[in-house]
Formats: sequence, structure tokens, C-alpha cells
Amino acid sequence: MSKICFGVDIGGTTVKIGILSTEGQILDKWEIKTRTEDGGKYILDDIAASVKKAMGDRGFGAEDVVGVGLGVPGPVTEDGTVLMCVNLGWGIFNVAEELSKKLGLPVKAGNDANVAALGEQWQGGGKGHEDMVMVTLGTGCGGGIILGGKILAGVCGAAGEIGHINIVAEKDAIGTCGCGNRGCLEQVASATGVVKLANRMVKETDKETSLRKLSRITAKDVLDAAKAGDDGAKEVVETMACYLGTALAAIGAVVNPEIFVIGGGVSKAGQYLIDVIREKYRAKCFHAVKNTEFALATLGNDAGMVGAARLVLN
Amino acid sequence: MSKICFGVDIGGTTVKIGILSTEGQILDKWEIKTRTEDGGKYILDDIAASVKKAMGDRGFGAEDVVGVGLGVPGPVTEDGTVLMCVNLGWGIFNVAEELSKKLGLPVKAGNDANVAALGEQWQGGGKGHEDMVMVTLGTGCGGGIILGGKILAGVCGAAGEIGHINIVAEKDAIGTCGCGNRGCLEQVASATGVVKLANRMVKETDKETSLRKLSRITAKDVLDAAKAGDDGAKEVVETMACYLGTALAAIGAVVNPEIFVIGGGVSKAGQYLIDVIREKYRAKCFHAVKNTEFALATLGNDAGMVGAARLVLN
Repeated sequence: MSKICFGVDIGGTTVKIGILSTEGQILDKWEIKTRTEDGGKYILDDIAASVKKAMGDRGFGAEDVVGVGLGVPGPVTEDGTVLMCVNLGWGIFNVAEELSKKLGLPVKAGNDANVAALGEQWQGGGKGHEDMVMVTLGTGCGGGIILGGKILAGVCGAAGEIGHINIVAEKDAIGTCGCGNRGCLEQVASATGVVKLANRMVKETDKETSLRKLSRITAKDVLDAAKAGDDGAKEVVETMACYLGTALAAIGAVVNPEIFVIGGGVSKAGQYLIDVIREKYRAKCFHAVKNTEFALATLGNDAGMVGAARLVLN
Repeated sequence: MSKICFGVDIGGTTVKIGILSTEGQILDKWEIKTRTEDGGKYILDDIAASVKKAMGDRGFGAEDVVGVGLGVPGPVTEDGTVLMCVNLGWGIFNVAEELSKKLGLPVKAGNDANVAALGEQWQGGGKGHEDMVMVTLGTGCGGGIILGGKILAGVCGAAGEIGHINIVAEKDAIGTCGCGNRGCLEQVASATGVVKLANRMVKETDKETSLRKLSRITAKDVLDAAKAGDDGAKEVVETMACYLGTALAAIGAVVNPEIFVIGGGVSKAGQYLIDVIREKYRAKCFHAVKNTEFALATLGNDAGMVGAARLVLN
């Protein structure tokens, strides 16, 4: 029997667990509830119980399992130490060691955004590229840097925090970011950011736009309208893409990856979005990195699980 | 006899060559002329002859030499391929392989700015830190990213091209950068940049400043005046530091290094400059990377030679 590995993606509401082949195929997947009460002290026990049950049900012994990879919603250092996990109520401890003790299996852990990036690099939009930068445009703006097929975690586990690149000039900043700063990329390049930019456009200009008729604008409304040729919506998407393209141009000059992979809910806008972002990137980047590729993420919500499994194969 | 290695730093005018112990001590160093005529075809022969002569004079055989490291003024990929070297007249070829054939010794090559960063990480301002970002504020603005004690070269050898981060808004841009873009960090954060900012301040404001009396302002004039409390000069240094600090804050969020090391001619301004840059960095960076250290480079013109030698010890 060929070996398998587990990929576990811990979110604030559910924990996604998958059984994967060592080639990256998802053999089975399910979810359990994330019990955040009492400082999140039940979470690892719940995961351990679910993994053990799955092994029992399928007749896997410890010898059949390469290990368990873990994606955690907070900064994690290379050795598997969580530095803080507000959503889960966790403080500082070595989550990889802890779960390994409970399971008697090798465990590796990484930040969830970084682990999702690793998943996309292994089996998704970045497949075939060893050096990749992932940008996730969801409610917020996350990122992950993969170099030589491995996550760059950073000294404080803060590498790849692309959403907190300071990119918006003070006079153009929209409110304060959750991190306490003003001008973060996340404030404009995210679903929330697109909505903020659209509301500002509607309120502060008399630009012709179908968005004006809506009582509540969503990011999907803006992207759909832009693709349909709506002037105001196109301006919003271009503003967002200009900030993101400029930030990616900076990343291009620093890290010089082979490919940028764009994921998250906003990326459902597809190739249109990629084309706008790449155009803005090319206008701002250093000539030597002009041909860096751009691609859409392909794994959706499975990226974290797949990347977590990859962690234990390194 | 303990082994030695050679560090070779190829510049547009001279080639610096050093003999180093494997612990990083410079045992001897000298320079030869860089013959750039005829497409730079004599450069490697000249280096090979100089290295062979040095070995002969000191009684070193091939068995005593770990190898020869080479710093090249242009992009170099991980395998030692030069992609272009305008200053030397070189096109695309594997410089490491070529010199290795001539010498019968292992040769490794890297970009000169990256190699200088490696030197500072090994024996200079970044000593004791595995993850370091170096910024060289000379005529231009160079950089190097060291991760896990190794150079991050990037897919096109363009990683660490910090000077070409697009950071100055179009309305504030001072002319066009040598790379063809406008708004590059190098246009403000370099000796040339400081002079441009100072000339603009003198011309476009009536700020009280001793710089106004000078017929030709140098970067040293500006830094000296700022340290002496001159208001106009302080404003110039703060403007420069604000751009640089914002760019480093972006790098902090992407790479999350332990330390930033500042070198190059402008850094002769010393701790005053470090303090201003760090202050601006802390105002713009993500909270998790606020305590990233800052230090001055210490190796001066030897950094490239030392870092080149380090290449062959990896």
C-alpha cells in the first residue's frame, strides 16, 4: 500500500481535513467544527480524534502515514511555533510538537496563507514553478512566498504579509487597516477594498455607472460591471489593480519569482482581472522582471489542505 | 596547512582579488585593471593569471584552494550564468564554468551587489544573522537578499534590485531612472538622489539652509548639514529616509528578515542616518516586523571580495 498524508487547514469556523496521496491527489476530505471556546484548547484534540478515526476506518497504521501537515490562521515560525492566533484563542506554543505527541505521527505546521500558497505551487496555478508568489484577494489580502518549492516563513513568521505593504498615499487612504496602519494594500486590494473604492467613486464623482443604482455594492457587482464595460466600475478595478500591480512590481524586484498566482473570491473575475493586474504590473516593474508570469489559482478552498499535506513531504 | 579561498570582485575599472581563510579572514588582497576592450574578453584570462601567480608565489597547490568566488556587475543566475554585463561588454555565458576551466579550480559566481550583501552577512554588519537584507546607498541604490545564509538570486538574477522598486509618485518623480522607469527608489535613495532632492529643495522652496550658499551640492554636504541641524538639509534626509523606510517596510512584510544592513558612501553619515531610516520604517511597517534590526555595513569596499569568497564555501 502506498503511503498517504493528512492535510489539515484550521479556520475560525471549521477545520478542513484531507487524506492525500504523496503525489498530491485528494483521496478523501471532510470538515469538523473549530471549537474556539476555552482558549481553543479542544482544537488539537478534535483534530487528533478525527485523524485517528479516519485511520481506523480505513485500516491505516502509523507506518502508512508520512505525517500530518497543519495550516494555522496566524504567524508560525519554521519550527512550528505559533506566535499568536487571535481567531482561535491561542497564545505562543509549538503546535506541531503538541499535535505530534497526541498522534504519534510527524507533524509540520505553517501559516494558513503560506500553506495555501504551497498548495497552489504544488498542485494548482503555480504547478511546475519552484519560485512563486501567491496573492489571495478575499475579504482581506493575504499572500505567500514559495522559494525553491518551500515556504518562506520569515523570522517572525511574517513573510508574505503582502496585504500590509504600505502602498496608498495618506491623502488617498480609506480609513485604518485592522493592523492599525493606514495605506495598507489590503485596504484597496481585497473584496472589502473594492467595495470601499466603489463607494468612494459613487459618492465623490459623478461618473456614469450602473453601480449608482445599487443600494449595497458588492465586490462581485463591481467586477461584473467592469467586465460588462461599465466606466465607473472599470475605473475602480483599474485603481485596485494599479495599487496591486505596483506592490507586485516591488515584490518582483525583491524576490524575482517565476510566477504570480492570484486567488481568493475576487479572482473569480478570471482572466480579465489577471490581464488588468499584469498590465499595471508591467507599467511599474523593473525591466528584468517584466515577463514574470501571472496565473489564476485553481484549488479554491482546498489549497490550504493540499499545501498542508505538502509540508510533511519536504 | 589549512585551506584558503579566493574572492574576486569585478568592477568596471578594477578587479579586486583577495586570499581569504575559510573563516573569512583576509590574508592578502590586491587589484588588477579591468580590461573592458574587445567585449571584455581578456578579463577572465587576467584574473586566472593573477590567481595562478598568487598561488605560485605562496606555494599553494590546487589541493590547498577550496575555490574561487566571483562577483560580477550584472545579473547572474544560481548556476553562474551572466545574463548581461554592459559595463564589461559581456553577453550571456556561464562565467563560473569558463573561469573554472581556465584555473582547474571550483568557481562560483554571483551578482556583485548580492555578493557584497553575502560578505556583510558573513563578516560585516549582518554577522550572526542568517536572514538579512542589504541596501547599498552609493551612486545608485543596490541591494541583496540573504536567506538562510545564502543569496536569493531570483529566476532572472534580478532579486534584490531594491533600487528599482517604484516608490515615488509620478507628480514627485525626479526625471527618469537609468532603467527607463520613473519613480524608482534609486532616484531618491542614493548619493545622486540626495543631491537631486537637495537641489529641488533649494530651488523650489525658500527654506533656510546653508546648502543655498554652495555652488555645487554633494550628498556629503547634505548629510553633514543635516547632522549639524540645518533645517533644509534635515528635510531632504527625511524625505529620502521616508521613501527608503517605506520600501524597506514593504520588504519587511514580504521577506521578514532579521536585520537590514545599510552600506555605500551615503552610509558614512553613520548612526544618525540609521536612526532616521529606522524611524520612517517603523512608521510604515506591519506591526509584526517593527523590531527588525538596523545596522551599518562595516566592510566597505572589501564586502564584495569577502562575499565572493564565501560563495565557494557553501
